[in-house]
Amino acid sequence: MNHKIWKKTTIRIREEKFIQQSALAGAGLMLLNPLDILAQNNPSKNMSKNIKSRGYAGKDENGKLESWSFERRAVGDNDILIEIKYSGICHSDIHTIKGHWGKQAYPQVPGHEIAGIVTAVGKNVTKFKVGDKAGVGCMVDSCMKCESCKNGEEHHCETTGMIGTYGAPDKTSPSGITQGGYSNNIVVTEHFAIKIPENIDLKYAAPLLCAGITTYSPMMKINFKKGDKIGVIGIGGLGHLAVKLAVSKGAEVYAFTTSPSKVNDIKSFGAKEVIVVESAEDLKPHKGKLDFMISTVPYAYDMSPYVDCVKKYGYFTQVGQPINGELTINNFNMIFNRVNFNGSLIGGIPETQEVMDYCAENKIYPQIQVIKANEINNAWDKVVNKEARYRYVIDATTF
Amino acid sequence: MNHKIWKKTTIRIREEKFIQQSALAGAGLMLLNPLDILAQNNPSKNMSKNIKSRGYAGKDENGKLESWSFERRAVGDNDILIEIKYSGICHSDIHTIKGHWGKQAYPQVPGHEIAGIVTAVGKNVTKFKVGDKAGVGCMVDSCMKCESCKNGEEHHCETTGMIGTYGAPDKTSPSGITQGGYSNNIVVTEHFAIKIPENIDLKYAAPLLCAGITTYSPMMKINFKKGDKIGVIGIGGLGHLAVKLAVSKGAEVYAFTTSPSKVNDIKSFGAKEVIVVESAEDLKPHKGKLDFMISTVPYAYDMSPYVDCVKKYGYFTQVGQPINGELTINNFNMIFNRVNFNGSLIGGIPETQEVMDYCAENKIYPQIQVIKANEINNAWDKVVNKEARYRYVIDATTF
Ligand SMILES: [Zn+2]
Ligand SMILES: [Zn+2]
Ligand SMILES: [Zn+2]
Ligand SMILES: [Zn+2]
Repeated sequence: MNHKIWKKTTIRIREEKFIQQSALAGAGLMLLNPLDILAQNNPSKNMSKNIKSRGYAGKDENGKLESWSFERRAVGDNDILIEIKYSGICHSDIHTIKGHWGKQAYPQVPGHEIAGIVTAVGKNVTKFKVGDKAGVGCMVDSCMKCESCKNGEEHHCETTGMIGTYGAPDKTSPSGITQGGYSNNIVVTEHFAIKIPENIDLKYAAPLLCAGITTYSPMMKINFKKGDKIGVIGIGGLGHLAVKLAVSKGAEVYAFTTSPSKVNDIKSFGAKEVIVVESAEDLKPHKGKLDFMISTVPYAYDMSPYVDCVKKYGYFTQVGQPINGELTINNFNMIFNRVNFNGSLIGGIPETQEVMDYCAENKIYPQIQVIKANEINNAWDKVVNKEARYRYVIDATTF
Repeated sequence: MNHKIWKKTTIRIREEKFIQQSALAGAGLMLLNPLDILAQNNPSKNMSKNIKSRGYAGKDENGKLESWSFERRAVGDNDILIEIKYSGICHSDIHTIKGHWGKQAYPQVPGHEIAGIVTAVGKNVTKFKVGDKAGVGCMVDSCMKCESCKNGEEHHCETTGMIGTYGAPDKTSPSGITQGGYSNNIVVTEHFAIKIPENIDLKYAAPLLCAGITTYSPMMKINFKKGDKIGVIGIGGLGHLAVKLAVSKGAEVYAFTTSPSKVNDIKSFGAKEVIVVESAEDLKPHKGKLDFMISTVPYAYDMSPYVDCVKKYGYFTQVGQPINGELTINNFNMIFNRVNFNGSLIGGIPETQEVMDYCAENKIYPQIQVIKANEINNAWDKVVNKEARYRYVIDATTF
């Protein structure tokens, strides 16, 4: 495969450069700080060329992806180049490419659950070395100067906003927008890459970078105690990880699904009870019972009877994002149930690292189906039709 | 006026009865507990007849009220009879009678901001005596046995639910439903009557029983500190009291109105800033600035840019109830603003007493316009058209 050969070449060049610089340093330039030497000698000169990439892109709002060759920016001083091994399929990819959340630029490569191996590092990079496992989630940049960025909440950057992994205007990108993980490599500022521990398989690590952090972050915010009752609505890619994470953290988990065929799986994930919801009637026995509820449903739905399942003064967090973002909330329910409704957006880099480390250490793995690149369109249909079990992960060697 | 004559008669009868019983007690029946004597001699016998009442009722969903004579239940052992002096007009009255919140029984007398004078008390009544000032708000009964009722949250009664002051099925009512305060008297269990301090005029006390408690309760729940920034959306009957209460409690108040003609009034209520909102653009300068926001808007509205005005992890409470209760919430806003949205329903009896006492002591008076019964329909139109300044209060002697 071309890109593999190219990768090996890059690594070799980089190794040779390093030897060369070490030699220079040994040759009497010790008055200069080694970093200055590196700068003077521009070790990334050979990385100053754009990176050739190949992936699957949406070409318009019809939502059918096609193979596409494109370029990424050259590896900058603070960047790493990751050879992608696995890339998860998130419902957000589908909503975005289909224009459900706003007009898009095309061609656009989706994918924000990216796991691979570092194949090149810029001269200022300290967090990674070539050969490390690394991941990229839903964002690839932010201002790094505002309060939110300084507090590890880069996703809430107050100046530029977070730069999404795909579809965000990006002057450094030859295509003009950021291009995501349905591809064989990615260039990213090291800060926005997550270290993937040795003891977790890359294919399991990938879904943690969106599905994992998106459900972990709001659950951690409520500081639940062992035995607290947590509800999860929608047991797909996000929801099944929410169940596993909540169970692992000691919660008594109630899983709400519309798919009877998922019941046994969900019980095997550790849920105390699985509620197959055919109508609002099925929710009545759970009224006012839960300490917390998280909804991963990515479409508008009859939300109020679910909100009613939360105890008074408890919290209900909607992480699934419907078309246009619009949900109907019934304030007659709200004035009686006294539940706090909120939304939650992924998590910052430190917390994403935290969930990655936690899952690696505690062997919390997503239940995945590995597919080839040419199966993506089919997989998207299955995601929309709730047939995924539970996260499709693309084998990036097939791009 | 007939009902006044009737009232005086009732009081006289009651006084005579009391003298009679005292005489009996003095005549050698001291072995019996005085309460048993009262029971044996049935001091409420003369109150065992249904109470004749006259008010204004809706006859159907067209929402035009007409004079109506009806009966209330006899004054029971735990009841008091209140001669109503003033009755506030709440937007909820209009929504209810017009069927906006569900099908109604007619004729129905609305009104849940009731202030008057006690003219009779049942034998078990201890909280009131004849001649006391008393008020009734939005509820007239609940189970009194459940946890919520025991905790002074009768409005969240877990068994029967609270029994609303009008329109609730009520076996004790000759008309089959509870009948509200647009009338010359009301019979109510003493527990659900509020003591009105001597030093507050009844016409100012009336609006506190819904508009006051509905805004006071959620503001008190957030435990705001002096100088905290509180926003109020919709400066009508509820909103103007929210402004006054928040100012009185030390908040820096930001009032959002669509009526430029209200600006000077609202400033005189103590608001730090009045924002006249013509479009969402006008809200942008306030994004993320408020510690708390309360919305009294009783119709569906473009809520999201208002929610955005609250600081992250702050609270936004919707007390205004739109038609069918439905509001659109945009989860794209919610995932970024991190605001907690909730609703709030009036307050329990102890807290209603608290706001009544607080307003009397601190001279927090609603700004009212006293009208006659035959002006009600006109006043309703003005409420809907946002022309009220700021609470209509009906002079109940005109029924
Ligand atoms: Zn995602
Ligand atoms: Zn920033
Ligand atoms: Zn009211
Ligand atoms: Zn109760």
